[in-house]
Amino acid sequence: MTSSNASLDLNSSRSGDIADAISVRSAVEHRLEQLVTDLPGVPPNLQQAVRHALLGESKRVRPVLLYLIAEPKPWEQGAVLDAGCAVEMVHTASLILDDLPCMDDAQLRRQRPTTHIAFGQSTAILAAIALLTKAFGIIAGLDGIAEAKRLRLSALLSDAVGWEGLVAGQEIDVNGRDSLIGVTEVEELNWLKTGVLFVAAAEMGAILSGMDDDRVEAVKRFARHFGVAFQTADDILDISASQGELGKDVQKDGSKATLVSLFGASKAQLSCQEHLARADQALVESGVNADPLRELMQRLFKMPKASLP
Amino acid sequence: MTSSNASLDLNSSRSGDIADAISVRSAVEHRLEQLVTDLPGVPPNLQQAVRHALLGESKRVRPVLLYLIAEPKPWEQGAVLDAGCAVEMVHTASLILDDLPCMDDAQLRRQRPTTHIAFGQSTAILAAIALLTKAFGIIAGLDGIAEAKRLRLSALLSDAVGWEGLVAGQEIDVNGRDSLIGVTEVEELNWLKTGVLFVAAAEMGAILSGMDDDRVEAVKRFARHFGVAFQTADDILDISASQGELGKDVQKDGSKATLVSLFGASKAQLSCQEHLARADQALVESGVNADPLRELMQRLFKMPKASLP
Repeated sequence: MTSSNASLDLNSSRSGDIADAISVRSAVEHRLEQLVTDLPGVPPNLQQAVRHALLGESKRVRPVLLYLIAEPKPWEQGAVLDAGCAVEMVHTASLILDDLPCMDDAQLRRQRPTTHIAFGQSTAILAAIALLTKAFGIIAGLDGIAEAKRLRLSALLSDAVGWEGLVAGQEIDVNGRDSLIGVTEVEELNWLKTGVLFVAAAEMGAILSGMDDDRVEAVKRFARHFGVAFQTADDILDISASQGELGKDVQKDGSKATLVSLFGASKAQLSCQEHLARADQALVESGVNADPLRELMQRLFKMPKASLP
Repeated sequence: MTSSNASLDLNSSRSGDIADAISVRSAVEHRLEQLVTDLPGVPPNLQQAVRHALLGESKRVRPVLLYLIAEPKPWEQGAVLDAGCAVEMVHTASLILDDLPCMDDAQLRRQRPTTHIAFGQSTAILAAIALLTKAFGIIAGLDGIAEAKRLRLSALLSDAVGWEGLVAGQEIDVNGRDSLIGVTEVEELNWLKTGVLFVAAAEMGAILSGMDDDRVEAVKRFARHFGVAFQTADDILDISASQGELGKDVQKDGSKATLVSLFGASKAQLSCQEHLARADQALVESGVNADPLRELMQRLFKMPKASLP
């Protein structure tokens, strides 16, 4: 695995020598494009499906999160970017699978037809497997990162995705929603569906930066609250925004138990704000430069700056 | 990841202190069972699907191959067994997916209903993802194996499964068979569908045993010929054996280009014998104790001992 040559425009940040979320996102886009270009050994149809799924319009929240938490030195930027791209590949794989007819049966994703609509179910499933597998290959080969760190990242990503993580969340979402009755269970599902990969991305950033255990814990708290808020906001948008605005199917959750369906949009909104406030508190405790991450949250949640502490 | 406590009955081997294929297979079964038991964090339906797919009747060729090539010292046996179980998980994941309605649409596998028949498509797909992901987690956490070796195994497994490996093979099998015209292309497909994971298992064994590059290359040649022979035999059995004998759907390949459909069973049989002879030659060159692997091949291909050099 050769790491990226993409360099970030560090001067574009108002915070001085720390990259901002927008420049990191551009670097992620650039590197993802590189990682799925010129693959002569890959069947063309499969390669196109991978590109279709991965390169659609996206906020790239998870790799940006990882990068901003890692605060890499210049010589580590390529590897940290690649670790973020690995997480984005895992996330994309989960989206392809979530959208399948036997799961959410969605038509639109990232402003494009879902991968199975564009390439058929078999190729869509194979594209997901390819992306998931590639993620582990990228992690194993991260240039200039200590072997022990790479192994920690790999184990952590496996746990986050596997049968107690994302996969468990999707199983409950598809086959176990009916048995969810209270806010705790719905929040647990939100955790598995979104929080778990947010926390994994953040923890990977923390490990890459070499933080001690206390700081890693604070980073994980930050990401957990951020992730739950993000999923709640997604549930609110599912009933209030248009398909065009979101670039994916809306009102797919109508019959599902979500915080919104259980308690209404305004209570969900309140819960979202509460989690964001706790996220900010944990961010401060983590000692990570808070400014670029606050800007990211403000943009994602479209809030005036004053609404965050 | 804690490694297995399962110990092999080394005395059962006629070759002295090298385990034979049958005792290794028993140890693999035992360890696989342990790895998917008592998982309180896993949704019960998902756990049952994983167990259904993984613990069905199987020859466990890939983990046995890995183990017999690794020739582990007593204190390495647990970790080498776990590495084999990781490969078996990957293989099982590929079977679940191959059997889906959008792929081969199979009803029977490992003497059981296919996983999607027993648990529905969504849970089957999630079980496959869970197994694949777990495999990388196991590799990352292999007890007592040097970090650099674990990373090599992880990268190697990612390459074997990914968009230039198993996934490419399945894409061509499902969506590109029509364009296969000659023996070279069919053999290339056999390589991707079966050989690639045989070679990965064998190479992982070679890496775990600490072989030098020349011996690793000989091991890979051995496994490549073994894998191609195995897939060819499978194609022959597909038209000649009963469903009950194989424990899976038969005559699914009727319209597909295989060595059998292109050249008939007797020519395919000849090719199979040729690959087995070359496998044996490479095995000798590798310096690995050949007896248990020859016994494995003899049992798998139901040949009299004399037919192998």
